[in-house]
Amino acid sequence: MSELLQAQTTPTVAASLAAPAMKEFSEASHLDEVLGRLEATKDPRLKKVMSALTRHLFAFIEEIQPNEKEWMQGIQFLTETGKMCDDVRQEFILLSDVLGVSMLVDGINHRREANSTESSVVGPFYRAGAPHYPMGSSIANDTPGEPVHVSGRVKTTEGKPIAGALLDAWHTAPNGLYEVQDPDQPEYNLRGVFTTDLDGAYDFRTVKPVSYSIPDDGPVGKLLRAVGRHPWRPAHIHFIVSAPGYQPVVTQIFTDDDKYLTSDAVFGVKSSLAVPYNKVGPAWTCEYDFTLKPAKS
Amino acid sequence: MSELLQAQTTPTVAASLAAPAMKEFSEASHLDEVLGRLEATKDPRLKKVMSALTRHLFAFIEEIQPNEKEWMQGIQFLTETGKMCDDVRQEFILLSDVLGVSMLVDGINHRREANSTESSVVGPFYRAGAPHYPMGSSIANDTPGEPVHVSGRVKTTEGKPIAGALLDAWHTAPNGLYEVQDPDQPEYNLRGVFTTDLDGAYDFRTVKPVSYSIPDDGPVGKLLRAVGRHPWRPAHIHFIVSAPGYQPVVTQIFTDDDKYLTSDAVFGVKSSLAVPYNKVGPAWTCEYDFTLKPAKS
Repeated sequence: MSELLQAQTTPTVAASLAAPAMKEFSEASHLDEVLGRLEATKDPRLKKVMSALTRHLFAFIEEIQPNEKEWMQGIQFLTETGKMCDDVRQEFILLSDVLGVSMLVDGINHRREANSTESSVVGPFYRAGAPHYPMGSSIANDTPGEPVHVSGRVKTTEGKPIAGALLDAWHTAPNGLYEVQDPDQPEYNLRGVFTTDLDGAYDFRTVKPVSYSIPDDGPVGKLLRAVGRHPWRPAHIHFIVSAPGYQPVVTQIFTDDDKYLTSDAVFGVKSSLAVPYNKVGPAWTCEYDFTLKPAKS
Repeated sequence: MSELLQAQTTPTVAASLAAPAMKEFSEASHLDEVLGRLEATKDPRLKKVMSALTRHLFAFIEEIQPNEKEWMQGIQFLTETGKMCDDVRQEFILLSDVLGVSMLVDGINHRREANSTESSVVGPFYRAGAPHYPMGSSIANDTPGEPVHVSGRVKTTEGKPIAGALLDAWHTAPNGLYEVQDPDQPEYNLRGVFTTDLDGAYDFRTVKPVSYSIPDDGPVGKLLRAVGRHPWRPAHIHFIVSAPGYQPVVTQIFTDDDKYLTSDAVFGVKSSLAVPYNKVGPAWTCEYDFTLKPAKS
């Protein structure tokens, strides 16, 4: 067999091996040619991702048959989106959010198990290192707003309390701005970490969150206007809840009568995360129990 | 019928119309929800494009099931690509080129008719306003290199000569750089416009083009290395050929023995565009006839 191969390796064959024949161009053969160029990819995961990207991108282009002006508009949109990014603004994450991609990736990576608390996107305003407060404290400092008492328990999927769980909570001020967006708020305003007691209970005070607009002065805002969408998010409090031996959950608890609940600009709402606020005397109360999945073994 | 509708519009129905019920989140229903948000898009073309983009993007994500680190790598790649763009560097066009998308869009917009000259991408180095030279002139100024005599005719698809056609030609110097990339070359070096004579003939002199690397010091170069691809393009001369009453053609004529002919980094080669260079005395000759499609009525 190896002799046969050797015998066949005449100069002509060698030359044709060195320079594979050119194929006639067609839209169909072009896809095969582009996919063929991925053959030398060493990382098998990258090869799979780039192959899928190429196939789905080509299918998209073939479906819409863009003219050259439209193709250039696409190039310019992506360029402007990149130019809008800086240390505090990430316009490509915002684009992923408003296209529903961020929640899809979140859904793929955090599938619900039994009655565990559903996840939602972390969003761009999380800040590590918030102050650790004792049970019952306020995270609102002197922020004006309607007082709210937030409480509940952290539990296992069997309903047993999880003592010593950490809740990291953050939300906007009633002016619609997170502390990092607003020089008039004190450092780490409306952010706090709490530890559950032996009954798995937590409890803190704050001011009622409000609906707010995502930044819409860039390419993403332009896109939303072009498709007749608003940039608003329903009022919510972000949480990261974690405990040793359990999978942490990143989620958001929404005010269940918010008018943007079914049209969240970033698709973050899941029905199990919409919670009633009840007026008790001068203050609102909001109760929610978090249920954590056991850690993967 | 309208009475029936009116009778059914009880306050309960009206309220449910005002605030549509939240759907349970699932990966499948999420796609429908995102597509549903395009309903208010006024421009029907934009609606079609955004719907197709959403469906193909979701299919891509579902196929690869990215983890959150991979998703962030994608965000960062797009951001770096945007940041690389400036007045003279367009990294998103380069990305479109190396993914084969530019040639796909070109193929969709310039389908071959009968024996007409096939198109290729214009590339980022075209510059309008090149000098108009008389027949037989050199466009090479004092550029050192192997002399080439380029000639041929511009014809109809029936083979009749087209007199007064304009050929706008440009290519790299033997150092692999276009004049706009190289401060050492004179203005408009290796660029020229020629007019065909009564026989449809054109003819000019230059230096032999060489293979060259696309800019590979940015995210696109990083991507090429990761998938084991080189950044080289086979030697070519760019042409835009136009004449009143005919569809202009944007194309590239390739040196048919170039070692990168079957692995052009931007997929620009079509077999009908690969042309032999023959040595005649001290100079090379390259002959190519362009065939133009009649203008669309």
